[in-house]
Amino acid sequence: MTETSPRFTFDSPSADASEQETGTVFRPRFDANGLIPCVTIDAKRHDVLMVAWMNRDALSRTLETGEAWYWSRSRAELWHKGETSGQIQKVVSLVVDCDQDTLVLAVNVLGDGGCCHTGRRSCFYRSVDIDGPGRTRLVYLPAAPS
Amino acid sequence: MTETSPRFTFDSPSADASEQETGTVFRPRFDANGLIPCVTIDAKRHDVLMVAWMNRDALSRTLETGEAWYWSRSRAELWHKGETSGQIQKVVSLVVDCDQDTLVLAVNVLGDGGCCHTGRRSCFYRSVDIDGPGRTRLVYLPAAPS
Repeated sequence: MTETSPRFTFDSPSADASEQETGTVFRPRFDANGLIPCVTIDAKRHDVLMVAWMNRDALSRTLETGEAWYWSRSRAELWHKGETSGQIQKVVSLVVDCDQDTLVLAVNVLGDGGCCHTGRRSCFYRSVDIDGPGRTRLVYLPAAPS
Repeated sequence: MTETSPRFTFDSPSADASEQETGTVFRPRFDANGLIPCVTIDAKRHDVLMVAWMNRDALSRTLETGEAWYWSRSRAELWHKGETSGQIQKVVSLVVDCDQDTLVLAVNVLGDGGCCHTGRRSCFYRSVDIDGPGRTRLVYLPAAPS
């Protein structure tokens, strides 16, 4: 990743599944809202930190700057992760799935190492446990150090 | 997880963000299409195998049976992963994110250990690399043994 790249444009998905699945051209498939889901993992520990969405602009800026940009659906705006919190996500790698409709972004988190707006390191801190016939409850996972 | 649980029903998301984010009641937030994204990871290696979608029925069946069920958007039908391929995903844990609109499912894969319909262990086998100013290319990752 470099901080000097200009804006990226992206090829359209191919109607040929083989090209989409085995080709070496990046053809991200944005959904009807122009968004693609991004699973963000810790580059060192490999655990899932968050799942967010990117539009074309956020994806381009992520590649341009080497820092994670998302599209905030709740605020309907571009979101440079960590811009206010200091929890900047430095991109280590970006991987796409078979049909190119999902991304996995591996990052190193700056600042205090947090990721979740609740202050936690990861957004995934509660397990869904079975609590009886047809019943669930959430159980907090042990907190990992930042 | 048990194979004898009856059908699960799910509470609605709370309008109270604190309840949604810190409560111990599972309140999955299905989207406008009745779906919630599920990041499926390998329970032992912790890498991302696939990202798929569940509706209420798929989520209930996953909890009922201890095996992963999804909603196939392309086929518009319930999808018991591995039913034809033998690549059944045995559930080890299910974790929900802060606002309860995304799931992480940790599984052990049966059969030949594959997950992707292309025959690979994971759907994420190509890295998005920068190939010059504003240009990308996909680069195959080294194949991990199944």
